[in-house]
Amino acid sequence: MALNKKTFFNFFLGQKNNFSKGKDNSLLNLDLMFYPKSIALVGASSDDKKLGSIVLKNIIDSGFKGEIFPLNLTSATILGLKTYKDYEDLPSIPDLALIAIPAKFVLEVLEKIIKKGTKNVVIFSAGFKEAGLEGLALEQDLLEMIKKSSTDGSIKINVLGPNCLGFVNNLFPVNVTFGQPVNKKGNLRFISQSGAIASSVFDWAEYNEIGFSEFVTLGNKTDLNENDVLKYFYENDISSQTKEEGNSGLVPVGMYLESIIDGKEFINISKKLSAKNPLFLLKPGKSNESKKAMQSHTGSIAGEDYVLDVALKKAGIIRCDGIEDFFDLAKVFAWEKIPKGKNIAIISNAGGPAVLSSDFVAEEGLKLVRFDEETRNELEKHLPRAASILNPVDVLGDALAERYESAIKTLIVDEDVHSLLIILTPQVMTQIEQTAEVIGRLSLEFSKPIICSFMGGSHIAKGEKVLNKFKIPSFRYPERAVKAIARMSQWAEYRDLLNVSSGSVISSKSVISTKESDLSQDKQNFEANKILSKVLTTDRKNLDSFEANGMLQAYGINTPPTKKCMGLDDARSFVQENSFPVVLKISSPQMLHKSDEGGVIVGIDNDEILEEAFRSMQKIMENMKESNFNSIQIQKQVAKGLELIIGSKKDIVFGNVLMFGAGGILANLIEDRNLGLIPISEAEVALMIKNSKVNKLIEGYRGEKGYDSTKIADLISKFQTMISSHPEISEADINPVILNDDGIWAVDGKIILI
Amino acid sequence: MALNKKTFFNFFLGQKNNFSKGKDNSLLNLDLMFYPKSIALVGASSDDKKLGSIVLKNIIDSGFKGEIFPLNLTSATILGLKTYKDYEDLPSIPDLALIAIPAKFVLEVLEKIIKKGTKNVVIFSAGFKEAGLEGLALEQDLLEMIKKSSTDGSIKINVLGPNCLGFVNNLFPVNVTFGQPVNKKGNLRFISQSGAIASSVFDWAEYNEIGFSEFVTLGNKTDLNENDVLKYFYENDISSQTKEEGNSGLVPVGMYLESIIDGKEFINISKKLSAKNPLFLLKPGKSNESKKAMQSHTGSIAGEDYVLDVALKKAGIIRCDGIEDFFDLAKVFAWEKIPKGKNIAIISNAGGPAVLSSDFVAEEGLKLVRFDEETRNELEKHLPRAASILNPVDVLGDALAERYESAIKTLIVDEDVHSLLIILTPQVMTQIEQTAEVIGRLSLEFSKPIICSFMGGSHIAKGEKVLNKFKIPSFRYPERAVKAIARMSQWAEYRDLLNVSSGSVISSKSVISTKESDLSQDKQNFEANKILSKVLTTDRKNLDSFEANGMLQAYGINTPPTKKCMGLDDARSFVQENSFPVVLKISSPQMLHKSDEGGVIVGIDNDEILEEAFRSMQKIMENMKESNFNSIQIQKQVAKGLELIIGSKKDIVFGNVLMFGAGGILANLIEDRNLGLIPISEAEVALMIKNSKVNKLIEGYRGEKGYDSTKIADLISKFQTMISSHPEISEADINPVILNDDGIWAVDGKIILI
Repeated sequence: MALNKKTFFNFFLGQKNNFSKGKDNSLLNLDLMFYPKSIALVGASSDDKKLGSIVLKNIIDSGFKGEIFPLNLTSATILGLKTYKDYEDLPSIPDLALIAIPAKFVLEVLEKIIKKGTKNVVIFSAGFKEAGLEGLALEQDLLEMIKKSSTDGSIKINVLGPNCLGFVNNLFPVNVTFGQPVNKKGNLRFISQSGAIASSVFDWAEYNEIGFSEFVTLGNKTDLNENDVLKYFYENDISSQTKEEGNSGLVPVGMYLESIIDGKEFINISKKLSAKNPLFLLKPGKSNESKKAMQSHTGSIAGEDYVLDVALKKAGIIRCDGIEDFFDLAKVFAWEKIPKGKNIAIISNAGGPAVLSSDFVAEEGLKLVRFDEETRNELEKHLPRAASILNPVDVLGDALAERYESAIKTLIVDEDVHSLLIILTPQVMTQIEQTAEVIGRLSLEFSKPIICSFMGGSHIAKGEKVLNKFKIPSFRYPERAVKAIARMSQWAEYRDLLNVSSGSVISSKSVISTKESDLSQDKQNFEANKILSKVLTTDRKNLDSFEANGMLQAYGINTPPTKKCMGLDDARSFVQENSFPVVLKISSPQMLHKSDEGGVIVGIDNDEILEEAFRSMQKIMENMKESNFNSIQIQKQVAKGLELIIGSKKDIVFGNVLMFGAGGILANLIEDRNLGLIPISEAEVALMIKNSKVNKLIEGYRGEKGYDSTKIADLISKFQTMISSHPEISEADINPVILNDDGIWAVDGKIILI
Repeated sequence: MALNKKTFFNFFLGQKNNFSKGKDNSLLNLDLMFYPKSIALVGASSDDKKLGSIVLKNIIDSGFKGEIFPLNLTSATILGLKTYKDYEDLPSIPDLALIAIPAKFVLEVLEKIIKKGTKNVVIFSAGFKEAGLEGLALEQDLLEMIKKSSTDGSIKINVLGPNCLGFVNNLFPVNVTFGQPVNKKGNLRFISQSGAIASSVFDWAEYNEIGFSEFVTLGNKTDLNENDVLKYFYENDISSQTKEEGNSGLVPVGMYLESIIDGKEFINISKKLSAKNPLFLLKPGKSNESKKAMQSHTGSIAGEDYVLDVALKKAGIIRCDGIEDFFDLAKVFAWEKIPKGKNIAIISNAGGPAVLSSDFVAEEGLKLVRFDEETRNELEKHLPRAASILNPVDVLGDALAERYESAIKTLIVDEDVHSLLIILTPQVMTQIEQTAEVIGRLSLEFSKPIICSFMGGSHIAKGEKVLNKFKIPSFRYPERAVKAIARMSQWAEYRDLLNVSSGSVISSKSVISTKESDLSQDKQNFEANKILSKVLTTDRKNLDSFEANGMLQAYGINTPPTKKCMGLDDARSFVQENSFPVVLKISSPQMLHKSDEGGVIVGIDNDEILEEAFRSMQKIMENMKESNFNSIQIQKQVAKGLELIIGSKKDIVFGNVLMFGAGGILANLIEDRNLGLIPISEAEVALMIKNSKVNKLIEGYRGEKGYDSTKIADLISKFQTMISSHPEISEADINPVILNDDGIWAVDGKIILI
């Protein structure tokens, strides 16, 4: 029982929903969903506590101007509206149908809805896959019905849910939610997979007087998912409708997602949106247990959470590191303008909080502006002698609203200042509300972002009310304000990067092994496929060292001379050809971390040691199970050099992820993780190398000689080609890669199939 | 002008207050300060906005039962109290005098107060060192007067401030503050150097319904400082007076300090307190500019902020990483019991926030308990089938108060569960206030800590009110709750460690160079002093390589054979004695980072290269200024091995700090900082080595051979002895120390004097 529950829980939270495959997005038309002229509510009720009553009230209270058809089996009217018993009986075809009845009746009704011709449906009902095996079967039937709805040549229906809280479109307006109403209009767009989180956001928004344009909850995502809604958002530019005096004119999109259905599509559509508007995401599941299951070194380093980080960066999405961050960003993106740069100025009536904030300015990658003489003189003119006219500006504990005003006026026109943080502690003289008024007025007058931190509780709450009125974000702790400003700057960077790079997109073809002709690629594939098919016949997943070497060589990656030794004589004859020093290794699919298990002996430089080492290898082999695929391998020892690691891992959501960093002993010591989603352009590869920790060594550190980074880039390119050419590769890594005067060598390669 | 302001700002914020030296703590008696039977207020006023009026009202409103003597030059009565014109005229000697008049009149009045015999004084007045040069002079005069107050054989006076907000003692009660009154009694003790921060804490406390026992603001700390108040707190155990039903019985101490006057005393007194009660500190100044000024490698790594971390850990004080953390800890330590261990159970009516919280549980070092079968069965009995009975427990979105109750009741009696986090999202069915009531009742019944996160805004606020009534900490974001629980556990660990180690204190004598007899120590000192006095005659601060080597050798630290070369012949004859390979270095007090400046050539292994290297060194030297102390040094090259760094730095507040970690190229790559305050016991040294990142290499990493860590411990011991024996050493480091088969070698030592 417990196990089953756990399984469902996981399924609900984190798994890729295979049901949604095969949907044709080109057929989507969500306009009638979000702008319906008529709505049918199946399961309308007059019982205050019932879903069907709450939804109906929300529709009416939202000011919906269209027709409403409540369906109910017993009452003739509900809330003064005529009711209907059967969907067939409706006098016209509703644009939108809402289902608010128990799960077991849903399919029967949906069939009628499809038959009638309604194309957009919201299913509130719970009791599907989140509720156990029976519900899972029901959901599969539901999916089948949705798919079949388009077989007669007409457009397929769009279904939101089941197990969702509905949606709000305050621009229309219409509110079809099962929850606290959020009818305040604003520029925020929201997508929430969870109804519970949506409830908290609703409650938070009411408290903070924040409005939304659209708020969509996804529920089980049987049909419509985040990508569909994002696409709809992208195609429906609402900026002209939500632009208000003083605000940024942006339309930020907040997302709470527990799973991402199709990572590549998600990145593509998000990129388009985030090139114009801030996108921010909260996703649980950082401490992923799946890490343990990874078999290769790259696998364990490139855990799913790091992959998500890379993917979100590529998509220009700000990742929230907690619920507080999520709420803070919603406020700041909804209300405030985006700073032009990282220079911040702080005004405070207390020294301590100002210095604390400066600490966070440095931590968050912002910069305290150094005021020029003109600004300093201007401040000096208006502030008392004891005030600090450097940044942070201390207007002193007895500052009235007027003194704040002079300081803000001076700094808001300083071109070097990109954003203002205004800190207020409620001291005896402090004019809390008046100061808030002053800030509000100035923020309407100037286009520079102002964020406040009124610190305290009871008294400062009055000032917060005033700031809310002016839509100026205020945080009770200044560090939150600093972080919010930093996050805005981060998005601005993403946006600029997206807008620059969208002009010069490098095709994925051009970045993979640009140095090889198509002909030679065919040959590479042929060689590699030969190896892989042989492996597959043995029903193994792990390639042995020779097979892995063969794969690497097929793609032009150098591996040191090596040979399988049936006996000591083979080893000796290898030495005669290749000379000392050599390395002995056990080649076995069972032994993936050879060094840790005594399966590698390096630095063998005479016959005596060779013999001794060979015997010890034989002993280890004797104790191993399933010895069919095990052998002793001799390898020419590569001269010392820089040790690197290059690897890849197939992520279930985002596809192949490449990792590059310091290898050998350093790999675990310095945690040098540099990830990219394949295909990675040459420019991105160069940046990846440059931003790595090991780059200090590549460039030549403290008098040591450096290394040729183009050789690394070339190897990464070849490795990418291999990974992209063979979708059956699940994980691969080369550790170490040794870069020395003789070239760049894949000393130890591992390849694991799906 | 601007420069002056900056200077004062720094002085106010971060500098050691030299004025306070020479105070004899044994003469302190603060009982009459905090429990006065009579109070005189100099500068009492009937003008609502004046300091003297606000303070007077606060005294009266606090319910102070003793006599009050307002002093005022014009009014005969204020607020119905008879006033006095002159301190001499007072009918008796007040226990406590408050000064609320402009700075320039303070000294005159203080003289009369001293003459009258009042021993405890609070000076609210601003306008002292924080206000410029004039104020600084005034403050020096003030200090003189305070010092002189004891010269006639009587006890010296105690002065709180100037430029402070006064104090509150709600146990007496008496409130002599110039600010929002905080008369709610509670178990929290507070020390704030800043009045502004105190204002915010007052306002926050009112909002959150949190009470204090004592709240002391320090201001300029001319006389009384944090150590005095902590000592008073230690000597006055108030736990029996503040213990209430359901609370922990602890008396937590929150501190906001911008400077620490005497680090060693601070650690000593804090240790005593934190062995029984939680201490937590907020201190600004992490991004310290002073780091830049550090000259040696250790100097830049062992920045002041890291030293503070080490010191606070030693003192058992939790360090807050921001204002929010500070406020969160105040709430949780004031209200909640301390968990017995790190096992946490989560109950939630929503899956998403529960999983998000689990992420933070891992991040904060707590553990999600794995419930045993009995607990799982019990949960299964009470919860619906779709609920999750694993940890986190999902009671589902439709959970009423009763379902929360069953889940809590089951987990609160489970011995494996050390704390409970209860998450509530305001869904349609959710009984917010009833659930809070249930939690409140259960928390009174059981001694297990319960922390809540009611997520939202408007609606959940009603639940928060109920939780406040029961003194159950609630946070709007569950990650804050998790962090607060983790911080409580952290303090519990500190406390246990302090209580264990207090039984077996190792004297500082025994830990420094235990292997040397006193006689040989005298000899070491003699040799070392010879070198140092020679250096001091030259008015230099930096020892050259030979002098540094000499110092190290004097304390038994091995350095490789080395020689100063006047010409190439000297180098050649060194090679004849010591053989190749050798290293050439420029020895110059100007060149502290030789490797970076081309001042080191390693791996010289034949005559030709030796000559070439020597010539290139000579060229560099020709271009250097002040060549008097420069020379070329030849050194036997030490065989490869493990590279370490050992260094020390004199911290202005906490004394000598030792740093140990990975050296050579790794030093900057892996940021392996391990600090300790000298003297460090042998056990602490062993732990320091064990916890270092480089320990992976010491123990032997991935098949590589390991190293003998006792050799490292021995070197650290000798190094400590050297540093402790010569207070004139400001910074020193050995980088690299090379540990190889031949021994442990100080290859390059730097010593800088004060």
